[in-house]
Order: sequence, then structure tokens, then C-alpha cells
Amino acid sequence: MRVDVSSARGPYPVVVEPGALARAAAEIEAAAPDATARVIVTDENVDAHHGEALRERLRPSGVVVLPPGEEGKTFRAVEGLLDRLVEHGLDRRGVVVAAGGGVVTDLAGFAAAIHLRGVRSVLLPTSLLAMVDAAIGGKTGVDTPRGKNLVGAFWPPRLVLSDPALLGSLPRREWIGGLAEVVKTALIADASLFEELEATSVDALRADPRAAAGTVARCARAKAELCSRDERDDGERQLLNLGHTIGHALEAATGFRGLSHGEAVAVGLVTEARLAERLGLAADGLAARIAALCRRLELPVRGPAVEVAHVRSFLRADKKREGRALRFALPVAVGHVERVDVADEAAIDLALAEAVAESA
Amino acid sequence: MRVDVSSARGPYPVVVEPGALARAAAEIEAAAPDATARVIVTDENVDAHHGEALRERLRPSGVVVLPPGEEGKTFRAVEGLLDRLVEHGLDRRGVVVAAGGGVVTDLAGFAAAIHLRGVRSVLLPTSLLAMVDAAIGGKTGVDTPRGKNLVGAFWPPRLVLSDPALLGSLPRREWIGGLAEVVKTALIADASLFEELEATSVDALRADPRAAAGTVARCARAKAELCSRDERDDGERQLLNLGHTIGHALEAATGFRGLSHGEAVAVGLVTEARLAERLGLAADGLAARIAALCRRLELPVRGPAVEVAHVRSFLRADKKREGRALRFALPVAVGHVERVDVADEAAIDLALAEAVAESA
Repeated sequence: MRVDVSSARGPYPVVVEPGALARAAAEIEAAAPDATARVIVTDENVDAHHGEALRERLRPSGVVVLPPGEEGKTFRAVEGLLDRLVEHGLDRRGVVVAAGGGVVTDLAGFAAAIHLRGVRSVLLPTSLLAMVDAAIGGKTGVDTPRGKNLVGAFWPPRLVLSDPALLGSLPRREWIGGLAEVVKTALIADASLFEELEATSVDALRADPRAAAGTVARCARAKAELCSRDERDDGERQLLNLGHTIGHALEAATGFRGLSHGEAVAVGLVTEARLAERLGLAADGLAARIAALCRRLELPVRGPAVEVAHVRSFLRADKKREGRALRFALPVAVGHVERVDVADEAAIDLALAEAVAESA
Repeated sequence: MRVDVSSARGPYPVVVEPGALARAAAEIEAAAPDATARVIVTDENVDAHHGEALRERLRPSGVVVLPPGEEGKTFRAVEGLLDRLVEHGLDRRGVVVAAGGGVVTDLAGFAAAIHLRGVRSVLLPTSLLAMVDAAIGGKTGVDTPRGKNLVGAFWPPRLVLSDPALLGSLPRREWIGGLAEVVKTALIADASLFEELEATSVDALRADPRAAAGTVARCARAKAELCSRDERDDGERQLLNLGHTIGHALEAATGFRGLSHGEAVAVGLVTEARLAERLGLAADGLAARIAALCRRLELPVRGPAVEVAHVRSFLRADKKREGRALRFALPVAVGHVERVDVADEAAIDLALAEAVAESA
């Protein structure tokens, strides 16, 4: 599958194909023919599995290996990475090649956006989450103690190359986290995918590379289309925030330690569906149906014990706030999501109370 | 004077007019009619002189007062500023109003570029240097220990409003620094301004607000036109690097303490003219003429004692490097500057040796 994403800096291809890593060098050459230097940015886990293949195939000017994990997605980490790019001689015509999950593509993409006021990036997502979501659409950034992705840039890459064969080495828990974004995308844009997911399981998907590759391609295409129509997230693209408004606040409220991103999104999907029901936007039963699919895919439907007021304080710092109301993407039905400004704080609090463990 | 600058994110006006600060609120309102919050970013010196007027006229949601000086233009300072923007409730539709010299407009402009992946900025330059150069063209960024502006973004403001009446409170040394950028602009684009400068003095300019306002307007227009034709600095805009390739390296090599930016640029202008003569691009005498004007305007023509090899190491990290050659903007004659890739390291070293004090 190959689809072009439109951006203010020109279109770029998203390629999803088992075995694509083998021709990464040629694809990068085509996307950035005059590149003076290529620096690979990756993390320790990806390096352990794919580092050798990446070095052999891409012959980089340098490799920067970051510690893994969302807790490393900080301003300080970007500062260190920028220093390393200078050390490796990455000048204005160099290319940053980010090989990893969403943390690596967000962080390295952001470093590319601000190194020498912007150099080109190429993304080689290695996790399910990055292949279906994080690597597509040009959003880059880091977390701050006040919330997720509060600092960043829109910086479209020159190429996104996904090789679903790499998912064979992805730990089971990361597979599960990525499936939260798959469920989200299906809810927004692909009702038949949602139904197929209702008839599968984590292990069935992991055991069937062809089915997994097909799922990645469908989600990547759906995201590419939304981002092409609304690069800067002023309109339709905001549908992709489904599950994330509450998910991000939960992640921040638990110090990015209680839940993985995907797990937080799953809780967010269920909670926002409950909010949609409470506001009369969705028919009763939608939240239960989403919760059943999440449970089937071994995703949580409720977060750890944390005070509702604490979660609410992070919602208030949300990028999507418009004056007093909070902007949500809320599910109306499977395959139909709408953007809604919610000023009803009581309804939000009730939904939040259901999103966290009862002991809180 | 009012001129529109083209940018990928749409045109924005640059206004130069004595007394313009009095109608800053209306101009900002016109440039960002739906703004939810306005946060003023300034420094202690500007706050002491103009803080009260700014607060009264703009009724901001918050004011962030930074310590003054180039040494504060760091990644850490941006991190702190981003936190303050969140504290002051600056959401996606808020506006960052940067009121100050080049350090403030570069730093606050960069914070605006990466806060919530980009919010609007308005620049109210208060120094001669910022009015004629730094505030125009959308370049934002910070220094790193490895060099000036190595980290940053192109982030066009929505409005640049210059009130030359504010220059009345500008310290004499800062006037002199700003004049280096005036000389640079005249060398590139305005031979008659260069000749007028050869017949004036620092005190004459400071004593004649009308002449000063006219000079600011001519330089601002020249810069606006170059940036409109080449926003991302891939071509013609690079002429504005005149004096800066060597100037930046000197600043970095002296730890940003030996020379002010303007002083470093003056040394750079003379040194690059000498390089142009040595390469046979400029007629003999041009460097002497530029040096005479710099001396007349009380600008240095030689930097402090520092090792040539040390300066060269910073030249090598320059953003404008293209492979092995260094890209310079070199003066051919007054009013005529050309971009030249210089691979002749001996010529560069000889020019550098003349740029630093003899004891080095």
C-alpha cells in the first residue's frame, strides 16, 4: 500500500508493505536525493532487534540510540539529541531517520523540526501504534510535566516506510497498546474493520502477518486521508482525538506511569463513549460495545485509582480547549464520530469518575 | 511605512511608524481578531521603560519578564517560558506578544512556534537591531553552546509593529550595535543609504528621530522584500548573512561574551569584505571603505584575542555549510552582494587572522 499525504511542505508517501525495510535505502534516496548525511535515531529495544539491519542497509553517518519509553520523551532528551545531530555532522541538507515506536518518531521528528530551523526527516515506524497512528500526519513533540505533547511542531516527514514484518518482534503488551489506535481508527472511519476486530483476538492477529499487514494498511490509509484534508488539525483531523482527550489527561494524572499510551486511549474510548451517551449523542449500548471489544483485545476499560479533580486539572491544560468548553471527538455510532464542544462539567466529571478505579 | 511580507502561512504586515505603540492594541486585534489570550513576553530593561505603557495598552492575560542579554537565549529559557505560557492560560487561539530586542523576539517567537505545536505571535521590536533585522522574516531560535541559532524554527509572526519613538530610551551601545545591521542592509540593497551613513554619526542619528525612523523604514522594507521572495532562506535571503558567517563564529568562539551581536557583525562585514578582495570578487578598497564607516559609527573592525583555529571550528558547525565548502554572502561593491561557496580554507584562515586581535 502506498498513499500520498498532502502537507503545506508538499506531499509525502506513506508506504506499508511487508519486507519494505529491505529497500529502505532506495526509498530514502528517492525521497531525499541530495542528502548529505543520514543519522538514524532509534531506541535500545529497536536497536537490539533491527539495529544491525538498519546499519547495514542505510549506511548512516551516525546512529543515536535513546533509552526506550515514554518517560524519555522530554525537552531535555531533545536537547541532547540536537547535540548529537551536530556531532554527527547533520547539516541543512542532512536527513534524520527515525526508526522506532511513537516516542522515537515524535522525538526525532521534533528534533528534525528545530535542528538548524528544520531539516528533513524520514520515519521508519517499528511498532503497531506508530505504523497506524504516530508516524503519519507530521505531528511531532514532547511531553512536559503539565501534559502530553504540549510542546512540538507540525513537521511533515519526507517519507513514512512501514514494514509490518517488523511486528514479529514486537512485545505482546505493545501489540495490545497499538490495537487501541486500531480500534479508534475503525470507530472513526472503518465500521467493517471494527466488526472484524470483534471476531478476532490478540493472538490470532499476531499469528497472521497477512491480516496484520492488511489492518495496518487500512488504518494508515484512513489516517493519511484525514491528515491530507486537514494538516494543521483545525477541523476534520480532530476526529482522531477520539479517546485521546480523556486518555491524555489520565496519562498525565498518573505521571505517565500508570498506563501505557494505548491503554490510556482504550480507557478514553470507553469513557468518551459513555460521555456521548450521557449527552444524548450516542445510543445506549455503544460504550458497552466498545468496552467489550477492548476487553476482547485485552485492553483496560478503566484506569488506576486517581482523583477526578486531578484528572480534570490536566483536561483544562488540553491543547483542544476552546475558551471554557472542552473540545472532544465523541462517537455517535461505529464508523461515525463528531467533534463536540462540551461545557457541561458535571457530565465530564461523571464520565471521569467512571474512568478511574472505584477506590479513588 | 507598512509593507506585507509573504510567508507560507500567509502574508503579515510590518509597520514602522513613530507613535505606533499607542495603537498596538487595535493592530493586534486586526491581526488576530479571535485571540483568546495575550501574553506579553519582554525583558527587565524593556519592562522598566515600557512595561507600564504595554500593560495599559494591551491589557494582557499575563506578562513574562525575562532577564536581559544574549546569554539568556537558551533552550532552558524556552522551556521555562513554555511553562509560563501554560500558567497564563495561553491556549491554541492565544497570542504571544514579544516586546523587546532580538533576543526577546527570537526566544518568544520560538516559544510560540512550539507551544501546543504553534500559536500566533506578534512582535513589537524595541531595539534598532530588532526593528531593522531580527523581528522581520520569521526566523526564531536559541543559541546552544555549539553556536548561535542552531536550534529554532521558521515561524512567521502575524504582525511586526515598530515604533521608532521607543529608540529614545535605547542605550547608546545598543544603538551602535543596531547600526551594524543598518550598514549590512545598506551594503546589500541601498547604496544611497550607505552614502548617507558615511556623512552622519551615532549622535547625529540619535538626535534626529525623523532621520532614524526613515532609516528603520528603509532597512525594514529591504529585509521584508528579501524575505518575501525567499522565506526559507534557500536563495536570495542568504544575502542577509553578510557579515554573519564570520560574525556568528566570532561570537561563539568568544562564548557570546567578547562582542555584542552587532559588534561581531561589524567585524564580520569588514573581514568578509577582505575575503572578497582576496578571492578577487571585490575591488581593492571596499574593505577599507566599510571599515571606515564602521569606525565612524563607533563599531569595531577587529575582534578580541582568540585562536583562529577555535573560530574556524565554529565556522564548521555553521548552518550554511554545504558539504565541505562554506557558503558566504560576500560584498562585490556597495549595494551588490553575492552568495559564494568558498572551499579555499587558506583564504578563510588569512581573513580570520585579520579579524582577531594581533596578540592571539
